[in-house]
Amino acid sequence: MIQERLNKILKLMEQKKMTQMIVSDPNAIFYLTGRWFHTGERMIVLYINLNGNNKLFLNNLFPVSGDLGVPIVRFNDNDEPVLKLSEYVEKDKPMGIDKTWPAHFLLKLMEIKGGSVFINGSEILDRVRMIKDTREIELMRESSRVNDIAVEKMINLISLKYSEEEMGSMLISIYKDLGAEGFSFDPIIAFGANASDPHHGNDNSTLKEGDNIVIDIGCRKDSYCSDMTRTVFYKAASKKGREIYEIVKEANKKGIEKVKPGVRFCDIDAAARDYIEEKGYGKYFTHRLGHSIGIEDHDFGDVSSVNLDIVQPGMIFSIEPGIYLPCDVGVRIEDLVLVTEDGCEVLNEYNKELTIVE
Amino acid sequence: MIQERLNKILKLMEQKKMTQMIVSDPNAIFYLTGRWFHTGERMIVLYINLNGNNKLFLNNLFPVSGDLGVPIVRFNDNDEPVLKLSEYVEKDKPMGIDKTWPAHFLLKLMEIKGGSVFINGSEILDRVRMIKDTREIELMRESSRVNDIAVEKMINLISLKYSEEEMGSMLISIYKDLGAEGFSFDPIIAFGANASDPHHGNDNSTLKEGDNIVIDIGCRKDSYCSDMTRTVFYKAASKKGREIYEIVKEANKKGIEKVKPGVRFCDIDAAARDYIEEKGYGKYFTHRLGHSIGIEDHDFGDVSSVNLDIVQPGMIFSIEPGIYLPCDVGVRIEDLVLVTEDGCEVLNEYNKELTIVE
Repeated sequence: MIQERLNKILKLMEQKKMTQMIVSDPNAIFYLTGRWFHTGERMIVLYINLNGNNKLFLNNLFPVSGDLGVPIVRFNDNDEPVLKLSEYVEKDKPMGIDKTWPAHFLLKLMEIKGGSVFINGSEILDRVRMIKDTREIELMRESSRVNDIAVEKMINLISLKYSEEEMGSMLISIYKDLGAEGFSFDPIIAFGANASDPHHGNDNSTLKEGDNIVIDIGCRKDSYCSDMTRTVFYKAASKKGREIYEIVKEANKKGIEKVKPGVRFCDIDAAARDYIEEKGYGKYFTHRLGHSIGIEDHDFGDVSSVNLDIVQPGMIFSIEPGIYLPCDVGVRIEDLVLVTEDGCEVLNEYNKELTIVE
Repeated sequence: MIQERLNKILKLMEQKKMTQMIVSDPNAIFYLTGRWFHTGERMIVLYINLNGNNKLFLNNLFPVSGDLGVPIVRFNDNDEPVLKLSEYVEKDKPMGIDKTWPAHFLLKLMEIKGGSVFINGSEILDRVRMIKDTREIELMRESSRVNDIAVEKMINLISLKYSEEEMGSMLISIYKDLGAEGFSFDPIIAFGANASDPHHGNDNSTLKEGDNIVIDIGCRKDSYCSDMTRTVFYKAASKKGREIYEIVKEANKKGIEKVKPGVRFCDIDAAARDYIEEKGYGKYFTHRLGHSIGIEDHDFGDVSSVNLDIVQPGMIFSIEPGIYLPCDVGVRIEDLVLVTEDGCEVLNEYNKELTIVE
């Protein structure tokens, strides 16, 4: 267990009068233990209690080397793991539940009354995870440094030869060569009108002259995620393409300029959104401005019009305005920013000037 | 909606007096609609009601082309999707909940009393999905046919040159070239003592003469999964290696021979397990004999000592006995079987005789 992180969690639990919590998300377990457990459909629970009676419930199939700093309660495929868990919990007290715990475990724990009441406890974990510690900040910088190099290599690969899918496939070796473990999310390489769908799935489309190309990619390096988007044009850019490119670029800048401790996430969203609306494209900016990022590509905490939370130093999130004209053209420009004491540090340095690839 | 599949679900719901159900698992939604939706942390719910009032709740970010055969209720990132869902459900009646629905949605639905009681409803879906229909059987045969070719190619690649990780990386192009979408699970390539951990994660280990090599791989082709394991030896096989190989091979055979309609899953598990125990290696066969498979690599229904369910025609599952001698050697041999009217059809044809790769 990483004691400093656990202490922050326990402190918040105490404030919220939650004495016990079930942590089940592999990302949260990694955050607290420094180890990855991928148990698939098999239950894994890190049980935390203010009284120090912490336990990791883990199927025998998954070996653990060295000392984890928390006792392990083992079970096998023939056991009912929720029953096992219920032997150790305080049944007469409220139980915090991790947000992604599969419903069938929760329903079973409720059935056998493994707590007095069941509460979504994830926000405690999530709010601690939002503020990155020194070690995490280093790793986040490094992951984005690698991503900057990767996006340049991808832009250099652009040619009539490769489909979106083929470019996506080549990216994995680029990341591996740079020492990353793999993707932090399925890369989006979208040519021409495909880019007007912000979540386009790469297909066998190939390039045409005048196409815009959205490259939205990220890697996981030493378990921390990067995520950035650049949009470039092939051989030529239409008047409309140029126009929306410059608007999105300015919106990205306005969003970034707004970031500092004390503002609300919704204020940052508004800084970019208001500008796009002013330019007449408001209805084509169809998503939130950004999302927090760390061990997960999408960490808790959206940069959106409905998030009234206050930004604090150590938070890292994306600023990614976009304009999507259906069946025509799409532009998105995305950077990660780290909130500092008096503003922010942009983790991506790759060029954002309008670029026409020859 | 694929009406024939939906009808089977509705029939079971009626028998169980469950009038409404929340289907959230992308695999189950694919089963019922023929479409994949990957919405990440964003809520997706296919709401099914015996009264025909079915709805798909889907975030605006995910476009749907053509007619899905079910009305779509849209929401966006600024909406509370569970509130939206609660406008359409029968709040005074029990609600079936999909097993993997993330806990925070369920806790929210409970908080706003979106049902009279909440029940794990997945078994209904899972039991229908266990019996593959004609189309599914065709696709499962095809996926395993491709996997047979892939395992042969992998065995041909074995050399001192490649680490486990490198062999794993090469497999993805092998599958792509054979028309598969990708892996059905992270491939296990385990050399020597690494193979004594049944869930070994590929690392940079390279081969030594005399090593056993466990190759446990599967692809997803046209959305259906394959999964097989072969164990071979490099240059030489130790006496112990040969001994446990022959025991595992015979256990695999005994398991397969037991498969026919009317037997229980636990009987099949016992057929293989008893033989391994008789030979003195019982405590080194540390997992269930197999698992059901289809749209998911691990479908509902284990071939284990505690599963008393009766085997029926159309079911497809793995038979994968193994013996793992810690820090020494591991052998696993796995085939998929399709239950027929009077026995089973083995979907994998690749050689199981002890093989020494030169």
